[in-house]
Amino acid sequence: MAAPLVLTLACADRPGITARVTGFLFDRNCNILDAQQFNDRAGNGGPGAHDDRFFMRVVFDPDGSTADSLRADFAALADEYAFEWTMVAENRPRRTIIMVSKFDHCLVDLIYRWRTGELPIDPVAIVSNHPREAAIRVDIGDIPFHHIPVTPETKPQAEAAFRALATQTDAELIVLARYMQVFSDEQSVHFAGRCINIHHSFLPGFKGARPYHQAHERGVKIIGATAHFVTADLDEGPIIHQDVERITHADAPADLVRKGRDIERRVLAEAVRLFAQERVLMNGGRTVVFRG
Amino acid sequence: MAAPLVLTLACADRPGITARVTGFLFDRNCNILDAQQFNDRAGNGGPGAHDDRFFMRVVFDPDGSTADSLRADFAALADEYAFEWTMVAENRPRRTIIMVSKFDHCLVDLIYRWRTGELPIDPVAIVSNHPREAAIRVDIGDIPFHHIPVTPETKPQAEAAFRALATQTDAELIVLARYMQVFSDEQSVHFAGRCINIHHSFLPGFKGARPYHQAHERGVKIIGATAHFVTADLDEGPIIHQDVERITHADAPADLVRKGRDIERRVLAEAVRLFAQERVLMNGGRTVVFRG
Amino acid sequence: MAAPLVLTLACADRPGITARVTGFLFDRNCNILDAQQFNDRAGNGGPGAHDDRFFMRVVFDPDGSTADSLRADFAALADEYAFEWTMVAENRPRRTIIMVSKFDHCLVDLIYRWRTGELPIDPVAIVSNHPREAAIRVDIGDIPFHHIPVTPETKPQAEAAFRALATQTDAELIVLARYMQVFSDEQSVHFAGRCINIHHSFLPGFKGARPYHQAHERGVKIIGATAHFVTADLDEGPIIHQDVERITHADAPADLVRKGRDIERRVLAEAVRLFAQERVLMNGGRTVVFRG
Amino acid sequence: MAAPLVLTLACADRPGITARVTGFLFDRNCNILDAQQFNDRAGNGGPGAHDDRFFMRVVFDPDGSTADSLRADFAALADEYAFEWTMVAENRPRRTIIMVSKFDHCLVDLIYRWRTGELPIDPVAIVSNHPREAAIRVDIGDIPFHHIPVTPETKPQAEAAFRALATQTDAELIVLARYMQVFSDEQSVHFAGRCINIHHSFLPGFKGARPYHQAHERGVKIIGATAHFVTADLDEGPIIHQDVERITHADAPADLVRKGRDIERRVLAEAVRLFAQERVLMNGGRTVVFRG
Repeated sequence: MAAPLVLTLACADRPGITARVTGFLFDRNCNILDAQQFNDRAGNGGPGAHDDRFFMRVVFDPDGSTADSLRADFAALADEYAFEWTMVAENRPRRTIIMVSKFDHCLVDLIYRWRTGELPIDPVAIVSNHPREAAIRVDIGDIPFHHIPVTPETKPQAEAAFRALATQTDAELIVLARYMQVFSDEQSVHFAGRCINIHHSFLPGFKGARPYHQAHERGVKIIGATAHFVTADLDEGPIIHQDVERITHADAPADLVRKGRDIERRVLAEAVRLFAQERVLMNGGRTVVFRG
Repeated sequence: MAAPLVLTLACADRPGITARVTGFLFDRNCNILDAQQFNDRAGNGGPGAHDDRFFMRVVFDPDGSTADSLRADFAALADEYAFEWTMVAENRPRRTIIMVSKFDHCLVDLIYRWRTGELPIDPVAIVSNHPREAAIRVDIGDIPFHHIPVTPETKPQAEAAFRALATQTDAELIVLARYMQVFSDEQSVHFAGRCINIHHSFLPGFKGARPYHQAHERGVKIIGATAHFVTADLDEGPIIHQDVERITHADAPADLVRKGRDIERRVLAEAVRLFAQERVLMNGGRTVVFRG
Repeated sequence: MAAPLVLTLACADRPGITARVTGFLFDRNCNILDAQQFNDRAGNGGPGAHDDRFFMRVVFDPDGSTADSLRADFAALADEYAFEWTMVAENRPRRTIIMVSKFDHCLVDLIYRWRTGELPIDPVAIVSNHPREAAIRVDIGDIPFHHIPVTPETKPQAEAAFRALATQTDAELIVLARYMQVFSDEQSVHFAGRCINIHHSFLPGFKGARPYHQAHERGVKIIGATAHFVTADLDEGPIIHQDVERITHADAPADLVRKGRDIERRVLAEAVRLFAQERVLMNGGRTVVFRG
Repeated sequence: MAAPLVLTLACADRPGITARVTGFLFDRNCNILDAQQFNDRAGNGGPGAHDDRFFMRVVFDPDGSTADSLRADFAALADEYAFEWTMVAENRPRRTIIMVSKFDHCLVDLIYRWRTGELPIDPVAIVSNHPREAAIRVDIGDIPFHHIPVTPETKPQAEAAFRALATQTDAELIVLARYMQVFSDEQSVHFAGRCINIHHSFLPGFKGARPYHQAHERGVKIIGATAHFVTADLDEGPIIHQDVERITHADAPADLVRKGRDIERRVLAEAVRLFAQERVLMNGGRTVVFRG
C-alpha cells in the first residue's frame, strides 16, 4: 500500500464530525488504520455546553489518492466545520533543530534514537550558546553545528540569528535539550507550538533555576521532569509529557542530578516522538496527547 | 439528554466499518461522545492480512431514540459485517456475584468502591466456601451471603449450586476476590468471558499456589498482581489488568503478602471497573482494553 | 525471646557513635536485629563540616534486660553525645486520633488496616467537624466518635476542646485523614512532630484548596498525594511519603478525584505505618525515613 | 580526608558482629560515613534460627591508616567470625569487559555513563561475536575491541580465548550487554559472581528466546527487564535489579522491542553501578542490595 497519511483536526464540537470525516475517507476508498478522538466537555457543563472542543487523529491508507488531492478535497469539509487541521505522511521525518548548552545527555539520547530509526526527525542543526568543544562530547556526524553566543547585550541579535537559521533550514521543530537560555517573549511567540523544552522538575513544582537543589531543600520523596511547549510565560507552557522517580533522604543534590538525567532524557525523547508523530494537539494551555 | 449508550463491536477488519457505524449514528441524530478503535494487524502481515481484527467502542447520546429501537435498527448492519456487538446504557450497574474464601481485603475494597458510586456494579450475592463468620469481618449490609462449602467429593454439587444461584440472580459478572478454589473445566466454560479472577503474582511468573513465597524464594525485586478472565487453563486466561510494586531483600514473605494485598485490591477493582464499563473486549487469548 | 526494642537517635555527627551504641548493646547481650544510619553531610561541605547530622535506628533483642533498665543505662551515653532519642517496644500500638470531615476513604482504609493487624496503632478516638452520620458511613466498632464543630467564631474553643481530648486519651499521633480544617498556629505548634496530614497533591505543586481542579487546569500528566507533618506553615511541613499516578487529557476533574482517593489512602496509610514503627526522624524541615 | 574505604561482609549471624566491626573501626579513628546491615532470618524460624545469615556494608574514612594495614588488622576478626569480606577504595573503577552481539543500545548507554563519571568502571575491552562494523555503530574511543566469533563447533576455543582475554586484562566484571550467546556451564562457573547479564523480560516470566514476542503473545499489560548474575542455569541466576513499563493492546512486538530498549539499558546500567560500588552481596540464589 501507499504510505499511510495522518489527519489531525480540532474544532468546536458539533454532531456528525466523526461521521463526516470517516465518510469522506470511505468515499475515497481510504481504509482507516487507527483513529482516536476526544471531546473536551468544558468545565462541568457536560456535552453540548458552549465551548466544548473536539479533537481527532486518524491514520489511513490513501489507496490510490495522493496527499495533495485529498488535502484539496478535504478543504471544503474543513471550512464547513472550521477545522484546524493537518494531513501529512505518517512518520515523515520532521526537520528539527536541537539546542544545547553544556549538558549533552539529552542531545546524545536524541541522536542515538534518531540513528536507530526510533524518532521520525531529521536533525538539520545543533545550536549552542557555547563553542562546540564545550557543548558536545559526542560524534554528531554530519549534522551542522552552530555556535550562537548569547549575552544580555547581544540577546536580540542572537535570537535574530537563530530565527534566520530556523527559516533557512525550514525547521519544523525546535528542541531545547537542556538549553539554559530563556527565550524572549518575541522568540517564544515566533516559535509557538513548535518549540519543546525539558524542565528538570515535576512542574508546577520547582520552577526556575536549580530545581534539584530546590527539591532536596524541600525534602520531596519523588523527583521528575517535564517536557512542555515553550511560551512567553516561563515554565508555564502546555505540558506534553512527565515522568518521575523515587528518591530518599540519602540522595544528595548530586544524586538527584544523576538520577534526573535519566528522567530528563526519556521524557524529552518521548515528547519529541509524540510531537513528530502528530500525536500532540494544543488545547488552550493544555495538550491532548493521542498515544498508540 | 437521555442516558448515553455504549456500543462495542468486534469483527474481521474491512474498509468502511467506522464510516458505516458513525454514519448510522449520525443519521439518527446520535452525537458521539467518545470513540476508540483498534485494528489488530495479525502477526507481521500488516494491514489487510488474512485475520486482521477490528474492535470499537462508541459512547453516544441517543437523542430521542430508545436503546431498543436503535438495537433493532443496528442488527442489519451488524449482520452485514458479522459484528459481535453489544449496545447498553452507559454505567448501568452490572449484576455481580463476589466469591471469597478467608481473605476479605478485595471484598472490602469492592464493597467500599461500590458504595461510593465508583464501580457500576450491583452486588447480588456474596458467596464463600467458608461460613460467614470465617469469611467476612465487615458490614456487607443487605447483600445476601451464601455459604457453599466445597470438598473434593462435593465439588460437582457445589458448582451446580453456584450455577443455579448465578441463574437465579441473573448474574452478569462473577468476581473471584481471592476465592481459593479452582473452577472445574465445565464451570470455567460455563462462565467464560464473565468471570474475573485476581491472581497474586505478576503472571506469567509464579503460577499456582503461594506465589509470594515463590517470589521471595526466587529473589525478584518487584512483585505484582494480575486480574484475568477465568478459563479452563489455570492462570492462563486473558489478562485484563496488572500492577506491580518494588520490594527489597529485606522483605520477608509476610511483607510481600502485606504489600501484595494493596496491589491485589486495586488491580481487581480496576479490572471490574473496566469490565463493567464495557471497556474490555476479548481478542483470542488476549484482551483489548479501551481506557478513558 | 522478649519483644524487640527500637532505639532511634539523632545528634550532631561525631566519630564513634555507632561503635559506642552497638558496643553498649553488645555489653548487655542485646542482639541487633536491624540497624540503619544516615549521616547528613550538610550542603557540599562533605563529612566533618560544621552541621553534619547523624541519625540511627536500631532494632534489638533485649535479652534479659527490661526496657526501663536499658533506658536508664543508656541515658548517660545519650547525655554525652546529646542524643535526641527514644527506646520503645517494637510495634507497640501508638495511641491515635483520626480526624475526618466528610470524605471517609482514608478513615475506612486506616480502620481496615488496623483490624488486619497491619498498622501498629490503637485508635482512641475519631473526631469530625461534622456529625457522625455526615462524616462516617462505615462500621467503626467501639472507637469513640467525637463531633467537634468548628466555625470561624468558635475555632479557639474547638481547638481547646480537641487538645483536651488529646490529653485525656493520651494520644501519641493525630492523623488528619482528609480533615478539611486548617489548624491554627498554636494548634500546629502544640502537636508538632505528631500530627500527620494527607494533602491531595504532589507537593509543592498545587498547595491550598481544590488541588485536583488546579491539576486539571494546569494540564499535568501525573497527579499525586503527600503525607506530611503539620506545621504552622500550611502545606509546607516535612514530607513523610508521596506517591503518584499517570493521568491523561481525558481525565476530567471528577476522574482525578476518583483516582486520587486511591493514592491518598495508600500514601497516608504508609506514612502512619512508618511513623508508628519509629521509622521517621525529623531533620529540620525534612525527614529521614528508614524503610525496612 | 583520604579516599573512603568500603567494607562488605557476610557470615552466619551471631550476636556482636556490628559492635565488633564498628569497634574495630573506632579503635583506629576511622569515622563511619555510611553503614547498612541485613539479617536474613531464614524461613519462618525468626532470629537465631539455624541458618540466619548476616550481611553488612560500611563506608568509612580511614583517617591516617592505609587500606593494606587495615586489611591486615581486620583479618584476625574476619577469621574469628568466618566473614566473607572485601575492603576496597570507594568508587575505584572496576576493570570491566563489555560483550555485545548486534544490539548496541546497552553498550552506548554504559559508555556514555562511564564518560560522564557516573559509573565507576574502567572498560578494558569490548568483545563481540560479530565483526566491529556489525556490532558497534558508535565511537568507542580507545577501548580495545575484540572480535571472537562463536560457532557450535568453535565454542570451546572461543570461550577459552575469552577467558585468556579476561585474565590478560585482569577483568573484575564481565557485562553481557545483550550478548546473544549462552555461556557453557564451565564458562558460567569460571566467571561466577562477576558476570552480569541483562535479560529482556521481567523474569521469571518469558525465559529464553524472543521474550517480547512471548509477552505480546501472552497479552501481558506490563513488560520489564532483569539484570542478573550469570549461572550455569540459564535465566535463573541471582537477580540484581528489575524494572518495568506499562504497555497496551495497541503495542505490537516492534513497539515492545522499542520500549524494552529503554528499560534494558537503565536496568543494566543500574546493576553495573550497584555492583561496582560494592552494593551487591550474594545470598545463595538471591542478592542483598544495599542502596544509597
